[in-house]
Formats: sequence, structure tokens, C-alpha cells
Amino acid sequence: MHAPIELANVAADVLARIRERAPRVHCITNSVAQQYTANMLLAAGAVPSMTISPDEIGPFVAGANAVLVNLGTFDRERKSAIESAVAMAADKGLPWLVDPVFIERSPARAEFARVLVASHPAVVRLNHAEFATLSGDKADGESAARFAEGHATIVALTGDIDTVTDGRRGIAIANGHPLMGMVTAMGCAGAALVCAALAVESDRWLATLAALAAFGVAGELAAQRAHGPGSFAAAMIDALHGLDRGTLRSRLKVS
Amino acid sequence: MHAPIELANVAADVLARIRERAPRVHCITNSVAQQYTANMLLAAGAVPSMTISPDEIGPFVAGANAVLVNLGTFDRERKSAIESAVAMAADKGLPWLVDPVFIERSPARAEFARVLVASHPAVVRLNHAEFATLSGDKADGESAARFAEGHATIVALTGDIDTVTDGRRGIAIANGHPLMGMVTAMGCAGAALVCAALAVESDRWLATLAALAAFGVAGELAAQRAHGPGSFAAAMIDALHGLDRGTLRSRLKVS
Amino acid sequence: MHAPIELANVAADVLARIRERAPRVHCITNSVAQQYTANMLLAAGAVPSMTISPDEIGPFVAGANAVLVNLGTFDRERKSAIESAVAMAADKGLPWLVDPVFIERSPARAEFARVLVASHPAVVRLNHAEFATLSGDKADGESAARFAEGHATIVALTGDIDTVTDGRRGIAIANGHPLMGMVTAMGCAGAALVCAALAVESDRWLATLAALAAFGVAGELAAQRAHGPGSFAAAMIDALHGLDRGTLRSRLKVS
Repeated sequence: MHAPIELANVAADVLARIRERAPRVHCITNSVAQQYTANMLLAAGAVPSMTISPDEIGPFVAGANAVLVNLGTFDRERKSAIESAVAMAADKGLPWLVDPVFIERSPARAEFARVLVASHPAVVRLNHAEFATLSGDKADGESAARFAEGHATIVALTGDIDTVTDGRRGIAIANGHPLMGMVTAMGCAGAALVCAALAVESDRWLATLAALAAFGVAGELAAQRAHGPGSFAAAMIDALHGLDRGTLRSRLKVS
Repeated sequence: MHAPIELANVAADVLARIRERAPRVHCITNSVAQQYTANMLLAAGAVPSMTISPDEIGPFVAGANAVLVNLGTFDRERKSAIESAVAMAADKGLPWLVDPVFIERSPARAEFARVLVASHPAVVRLNHAEFATLSGDKADGESAARFAEGHATIVALTGDIDTVTDGRRGIAIANGHPLMGMVTAMGCAGAALVCAALAVESDRWLATLAALAAFGVAGELAAQRAHGPGSFAAAMIDALHGLDRGTLRSRLKVS
Repeated sequence: MHAPIELANVAADVLARIRERAPRVHCITNSVAQQYTANMLLAAGAVPSMTISPDEIGPFVAGANAVLVNLGTFDRERKSAIESAVAMAADKGLPWLVDPVFIERSPARAEFARVLVASHPAVVRLNHAEFATLSGDKADGESAARFAEGHATIVALTGDIDTVTDGRRGIAIANGHPLMGMVTAMGCAGAALVCAALAVESDRWLATLAALAAFGVAGELAAQRAHGPGSFAAAMIDALHGLDRGTLRSRLKVS
């Protein structure tokens, strides 16, 4: 149904548009992830900003092309920043993504994630434990599709296989490498790349799969150069920066 | 008294248990150190978490197997997070380590460190200047042993030589490399590795020396690959990730 | 007017003094930049500290040799920390640098930057968009000179060409590499190196150009080793750490 070469071309087109248009992505993310997320966005050709100051969140979001909302290092200041950012994004019609990090470990985070998911994010990106907590359902392609349809959003359920669904259209991406799980903020950085893609591709489902496909392929290339998770983290940024259409076409594994 | 091969085997066993059990280490640490500390724990096979939000610190510490308390970037929010975390750790019987960063530069930090050390941490990890400030004594093996015995804790006095003492048992580890002093948060990351070891080894003295021995040997391996402190920081994570029993046995230098 | 070899020697002398004297640089900077800034200072031979806690900012600045004030991630706590730090620096006669990051995106930041620039910083370091916002003038060498003279400060206007002027003396440095623009906090780290130089060289104009010259040359060396912006970030730290007089003399491009 989805020819890999066709989707590889979509991913390559999206990457090319990010490099050309340099979209601004405003990131509300945890302090652990800020540096790696900013560097991943810069490597892709996007322009990150990161402030969560109440006096500034308005102008920064107003000047952005997409917004990342990550719940890691969740505190009062960040919660208030998120509320302002989401209101501003809705007002301006900007796409925003919610990444409900570690909600299975914190009831306060899970509760807030539910409020956010009801506020019409373009994409919800989460792993299996987070999906199970959020949906109260098992984490598989079918329940992800149901959840996406019910909430009129895209669900990107990440893991060994990444599932991207809008309820009607679903795809499974089998790229990536185990070292991606050994670098902190790797998932957050991938979610930021989805935001950059949302800024240049209005079909949210295509934007999401394009970004995750490129991210997974970059992970495979990085693993070939790396001597362990430390060098892998840098190699991943190098690989995304240099990623080309031919490599995407030869490596993409979707079903 | 301590055959290097015997202790190298202890260190290798502790590393193997961390990789197998993936202990959760909750880290209250400064924003400068968060990313490097998280990546070091992941490379060792542990699972880091980092939140300091008052609403969340309880559930995160309750779900952890060990707790790191680092005083770098000391502020009101972190002070309150530390107090909650220490109370919860005591309640749950979790081992916790205090790393009184830069107390020689700040009376407020030194005062708070004294309160913490009186609250029964499993381990106090500090450098010579910090030890002198905390103890009011000179920084050597004898005074470290006295301090450890008096406070019923383990003292890990780090420097060119790392001394680990519980008052009765003391050991000096001569591994490591000068480049370790040129990477920010290296000591914090080493302290986090001690926490991961405490989660899988109930003899706190053995856990501490195992972690510091592995860390020092990883530093030597990393220096062989590095072109300076930038590549060394990544190589250190690679080296810890790949560290094996044979290398520990051939390289450990203790007395 | 400025023989490259003469200025290369100045830069080499300044680097040598930083390595010898290990000046303490207290940095009030954003959480995105803290780790990279600290590692750059350590690689140069300086000693970074980073706290912004109101209880501690006084003793830390009092014990420092120079102060970095960066407006990235601008919030109330940081604003208050900056005000305390600037007052203490004035009191102690310490050089301080202001880096008005992203003021073109936030009126609150721009307003605060104007107050700071009126408080007699040793150096103002900014890019073209930031200069235009701050000065209300176009960003070129002449208006930078006017601004520097009018505010009795050094202006370091960075870009493909770095301009350093005190109003009477001006220089353009043509070193550097495009990859420097693809790593977050690279400019912040360069500003921190200027602070380390200010701590060991009382001619603020020479200190600033020495630091930016060394930084640009390090960028060129790093680009030769890098496979993309990820490996470049680490290679830049390696290159600054190993930078020698001969390389500065053969590579410096000034006019």
C-alpha cells in the first residue's frame, strides 16, 4: 500500500523544505533535553528557541512555525508556559506536538497530559508505556488508530517499530537502532524534528512519518560510525545533517 | 590486603548487575550536569530520571532504586526537592549519595551540606577542597576515615587518587586521567554511577569502590581515543558502555 | 595597520595566560548553553561556575575574575541574578560581558538589554539582528564604532566577519566556519572565552579580539576533523584546547 520509495521521496522532500525554509520551532522541553534538541533542529536546518519565561512565551510562540510541548522536568513554571503556548498556537493556527514523557511515573503529569491531548494537538508522540497510561488501553496499532481518530490527532507510537496513524491511514516504520535508546533526549529530539516537519508539510500524517523515517535512517547510519552511545549521540546529528534522498530510498523499511 | 584482581572482579560483577537489572536512579542535580549524568547512567545500563518538581518528586523517588543529591546550581526549588527526596528515601530505605559541589565557594551551600550529611546518606562524594570545608579538617585518608566513622557513612574522596573509606576499610584507587578534570559534570556523572552501584550491591563500601574503579578505568580507555576534552567526554561514555572484566583486571590500580 | 602576526602573538599570549592563571568565570547563562559553555571554558584552562541562586550569586561573583551575562532563557530568577551580579561586579571592579541573545524576538529582553548596556559592561557581544534591535541602527563597522564610543564599551559584532571596536580602534576578523552556526550555544561559548580573556588582559579591545580570533581559528581546525555539526561541536573544544601560537600565526585573517 505504501511503496517505500514513494514515502522515501516524501521524507526527502520534507527534509529539503526544512533546509530551505528554516522553520522556527519553539520548544518547551526539559532542561535535560534542551541542548540535544536544539542541536538536532539546527542540524536539520530549523531554528530552535527554548524560552519558558512567562513574559516572553507569547512573542516567541507568535514568531514560531511550530511548537513542541514536552512534559519532561515538569514544574509549575513549565506548566504555565505550556498553557500560554498552547493558547497562542491555537490562536495563530500553529501546529503543536505533545510528548508526554514519563507520565507512567507521575499522576500529576498524566493528568496534565490528558488536558493537553483534549486541546487539539497536531500530533501526540509517545512510547508504549506512555500510551498505555494515557489511553488506558494496550499499546498497539489498532488502539493507536482508535485513539487518533477519537481525538482527531496523529498518534506517533514509537518503539522498535514506530507506528504513525491518523485513524484512517496507518504505517509502521522499522528503521532505527538500539543505541537510540541509550542517549537521553533522543525521543525528544525526534519529536522536535516532527515539529519542524509539521511547519513545512500540511498533511500532518505525512509530516510525522517523514520525520520519523528520516530519524530512524539517521540512527542506522550513526550506528555504523559510533563506538558506543557517547559517539553515537554526535554521529546521529551528523547523519541527520547529511541525510540524502538516495540513502532514504535504499534504507526505508515501512509496512 | 586488597588484591586488584579480586576487586576488579567485584567491579565487573557490579557493572554486570547494573546492566542486567537496569536500576532506576533519581537525580537531583544541577542543570549543567543533567544531560551528561543521564547519558552516563544510560551507558552503564541504568535508568535515570531528573525531575525536581515539588508535585512529582515523591512518586519519582518512590519508584527509584537509588537517589543522587548534587548541590551544584543550588536554589530554593532544588533545596526543597532535596528535602522531600531525602525524607522519601529514608522512608523507603533507599540508598542516597550526597555530592556537595563547590561548598568552599558558598556558605549557604556548605551549611545545607552539613545538614544533609547528618541525615544519613549512604555515601558522601567530594573533592579535597569540599572535604576540607565540610570537615574543617585536612583532606587525607586518615581524616576521611574518621569522618566516615563519625557519620556512619562512606566517604569517597576523589582526586588524582580516589580514597573510599567506611572508617574501618579504606582503599586508594589510582586509575583515571587528567582529561577527566576538563569536562564539566564528570565528577557528578561518577557520583551517579556510584548510585547505580548502590542500587545493586548492599555493601556500600564495595559498591562505591566498584563504581569509582570502573569510572577511572573508563577514563584511561577514553583518553587513548580522544583528541582533547571534547572528544574525551563522548569517549568516556563509550568506554563505560563497553567496559569488560578483562580490562578491569588488567588495569585496576589499588592499594 | 594590524599585522596578523602581531595580533596572533597577542592571541597566543592571552591563551597562555588563561592556561596559566586559570581565571574563574562566573556565567549567568541559559540552561541550553550551560554545559557547552562550561566545557569550552574548561578546555581553555578557565574555571567556570554557573549558579543563579539569589543566596549564592554574591559569593560566587565576588570570587570570580570575570562575569558572563547571557540573556538566553530569560526569566525572573535570571533577571534578578543578573542585577545582583552586575552590582557586585561594579563594586569589585570585575569585567563583565553582556550577550543579548534573541532580543529581536522579545521586547522584554530588548528593554532589559538596554538597561544592562547603560550599566557599563566591558564588552557587548551580539550578532547583526541583535545589534540592529539594540542600537536602532544598521549593523556595520561604523555604527558599531559609534555605539561603542557612545557607551564607552567594546562592541563585538559577530557574523561571517567579526568586528571588534572600542570606537577608536576597530578590527575585522575573517576566521571561522559555517558549522559554527549549526551548534547551539556556540556564540555563547565564544562570549565566555572573551570573559576568560578579559580576566587576564586589561586592554579590553585586545582581550576581545584575541578570544574571538582564537575561537575562529579553532572553528577552522575543528571543521577539518568533523563529519557534521555533531562531531564538530566536540572537535571545536578539542581544537581550542590544543591551539598553539604557530597555528594562530599561520591562520589569522584580520583587516
